[in-house]
Amino acid sequence: MSLDAITADSVSERIDQARAEWILRTVLESNLLPDHASSFLVHDLERMKQRLGEFKHAFPPSTRHSLAIKANPLVEVLKVAVGEGFGLEAASIEEVELAIAAGCPHDRIVFDSPAKTVREIERGLRCGVIINVDNFIELSRVDEAIRMTGSNSAIGLRINPEVGSGSIAHTSVGSVGSKFGLSISEQRDQIIQAYATHPWLIGIHTHVGSQGCGLTLLCEAVSKVDRLRRDIESEVGRPISIFNIGGGLPAAYLARDNPPTPAEYVDQLRQSAPGLFQGDTTLMTEFGRSIQANCGLAFSRVETVRQLPNSHKLAVIHFGADFLLRPVYRGEDWKHEFFVFDRQGRSSSGHEEPVTIAGPLCFSGDIVANQISIPSVKENDWIAIRDCGAYTLSMWSRHCNRAIPAVLGFDQGRLSMLRHSETAADIVQLWSSGSD
Amino acid sequence: MSLDAITADSVSERIDQARAEWILRTVLESNLLPDHASSFLVHDLERMKQRLGEFKHAFPPSTRHSLAIKANPLVEVLKVAVGEGFGLEAASIEEVELAIAAGCPHDRIVFDSPAKTVREIERGLRCGVIINVDNFIELSRVDEAIRMTGSNSAIGLRINPEVGSGSIAHTSVGSVGSKFGLSISEQRDQIIQAYATHPWLIGIHTHVGSQGCGLTLLCEAVSKVDRLRRDIESEVGRPISIFNIGGGLPAAYLARDNPPTPAEYVDQLRQSAPGLFQGDTTLMTEFGRSIQANCGLAFSRVETVRQLPNSHKLAVIHFGADFLLRPVYRGEDWKHEFFVFDRQGRSSSGHEEPVTIAGPLCFSGDIVANQISIPSVKENDWIAIRDCGAYTLSMWSRHCNRAIPAVLGFDQGRLSMLRHSETAADIVQLWSSGSD
Repeated sequence: MSLDAITADSVSERIDQARAEWILRTVLESNLLPDHASSFLVHDLERMKQRLGEFKHAFPPSTRHSLAIKANPLVEVLKVAVGEGFGLEAASIEEVELAIAAGCPHDRIVFDSPAKTVREIERGLRCGVIINVDNFIELSRVDEAIRMTGSNSAIGLRINPEVGSGSIAHTSVGSVGSKFGLSISEQRDQIIQAYATHPWLIGIHTHVGSQGCGLTLLCEAVSKVDRLRRDIESEVGRPISIFNIGGGLPAAYLARDNPPTPAEYVDQLRQSAPGLFQGDTTLMTEFGRSIQANCGLAFSRVETVRQLPNSHKLAVIHFGADFLLRPVYRGEDWKHEFFVFDRQGRSSSGHEEPVTIAGPLCFSGDIVANQISIPSVKENDWIAIRDCGAYTLSMWSRHCNRAIPAVLGFDQGRLSMLRHSETAADIVQLWSSGSD
Repeated sequence: MSLDAITADSVSERIDQARAEWILRTVLESNLLPDHASSFLVHDLERMKQRLGEFKHAFPPSTRHSLAIKANPLVEVLKVAVGEGFGLEAASIEEVELAIAAGCPHDRIVFDSPAKTVREIERGLRCGVIINVDNFIELSRVDEAIRMTGSNSAIGLRINPEVGSGSIAHTSVGSVGSKFGLSISEQRDQIIQAYATHPWLIGIHTHVGSQGCGLTLLCEAVSKVDRLRRDIESEVGRPISIFNIGGGLPAAYLARDNPPTPAEYVDQLRQSAPGLFQGDTTLMTEFGRSIQANCGLAFSRVETVRQLPNSHKLAVIHFGADFLLRPVYRGEDWKHEFFVFDRQGRSSSGHEEPVTIAGPLCFSGDIVANQISIPSVKENDWIAIRDCGAYTLSMWSRHCNRAIPAVLGFDQGRLSMLRHSETAADIVQLWSSGSD
């Protein structure tokens, strides 16, 4: 197969086998990793920039986009987003510090967390980051902290639109009884009163969840909250200048997945909530998975392959529940697809056969894929796990204490080191007493 | 309540509310943590030493015990085990380095992993650690590496006893088609041949799983493998000097749980596999959960409490799927119980009511306990999560990037710092490019 055919034009959806082969062979021919490296991650920065551009292009130019750090927290990756004009969304005060380390202007950092402490609120306000307030207890803390700090941070209220759950209850946040936000039905009067009382409350935020949620659900939520916005504006007599549509869009993980494009989302938003596009409020976004998932590949050498007594093959690789936490623990909801390459990085031409792909951790449930059909694999082949750019490395679990592998950036054929591999000494340091 | 009543005599089973209160009040009255600390962990070292002693007492004195590092990898905790004469069991080459850092004699370190690379095998052999070989591919690698290194490491073969799964399929490793070990039924002849070929093969290892496995299942597995041992010995004409019974025993997490004691386990082993107690082979153990789980408490301040529209209360705490990975993702299998204390650390006398305890992570499924009945809680109360000494901190996930809290040791009323809390700077460092 010729690699010449791969141009930036094909950098639109998931990374296909040809591009994965290009990446793998480029890595194997480089001297960035030791010969014995048994696994590494690649983030396709060219594709990421294209995805960021697609989102910018789909929304009105005034939209303030931010990228969810929790999808992929590598500082070098965050810097790319900042360089493309994105802000950063932080799910914890530590992620606020990651955003600052990535050079994000403070007024483009959005601090969302359902468990902000008084100190964290004060720190956020002193930095001047945007804060979305989750509940009324937090609101009174913010009120007090604003008096103390004199901060000019933009503050919003998070509204639970109560539109029901998507297909994955575990990650859907907009159902009645969700732990997040204020109830649009039960707490409507108090919400309006809050805007009347606090002139610094200039934003409104909703968030439904990403994977498993269709456009109809997302747009219904935004539409409900936009109606609330207008009611607040008319009752309180001032505009709400930031409308944060939070959450995100699903990403494709399987050949049959056909998630909406940013343009389709905006088209449907224009129909469901036309008021958002009339220039009296600024849209803000917090995409993560839909931008990052398809930009990442995880490569593992196949450590062993053997025939199990019950007649299918077992291939052991170097990623398990430490990296693929949800696919291992909630495999019914979260699945990935795989490519197979030989030890030189050439796409496999072997016949397909049923294989169980097991991770390296010492528990029986550490199964990455159960009896899937892939080209025949053997020891020292490479397996690429597709669509690992979001919520994989960022959720890394220490179970069995394997070191985090190197992460490489790939941009138009050029490689860069986004994160060196951890060493055993790093793991010893992690579990040692540490300094004050 | 008087704290004088708490003596070492009561340090036998789970930590009860009185002892948890003693621990919490001791911590709050110390100056080890800043006043604003919203969470911390405690490992009860006095109890841990007692548990180690119970296991030593139950087994024959010649038994070589090791403690599973993956249950709790803190170097200061591992040092306690080494000080009590335990070896350490490593699930990865990084855990071998943790064991070395804890001062464990190398010939008391057991290296188990289903995905050992050639380099890892060589490293293990050069260190002189015990290696349990998982499969025949690995066996040929070990053979080659022994020729190269001239190592005198004790080597064993891992046998899958095929006794079926316990109640938690995810962590049971002894069923047909498990990813671990050699099949006792299908690969019997090859197993015997391996011992005949390799004079350095002096151990045999089996492992069923711990939580969810009853004594009958555990003892049946050991009995089957002991029969195999005797067959090997008679066919090969030399003794197998180490019999590693691996796995472990379940721990109690709920009031209704009544796991077997070490003494009951040994009693039943004596009946099922009397040959193990005749002095011609040395027993080796690898307990983890059953020793450590009940030694740990996780304390969190209650950040917010509010009434949800659907009528029960929601309490947000500072531990979620980052710390309680299995209770959040597989809540049907993994549950914890809770104690409630007021802000001064006094046991709550509030009436019980249904509460959902939510974690701090930005996804809806981050629910630690759903509508459980606990004494009424309010903001700034403390919640203690019981039985968090194993497979909690050790599985820490980076999701949302919250810092690992401080871990304190508690020993007869004295506190020590086992691990300082992480800082935001540590998190930034983790996701920065790092050094070579």
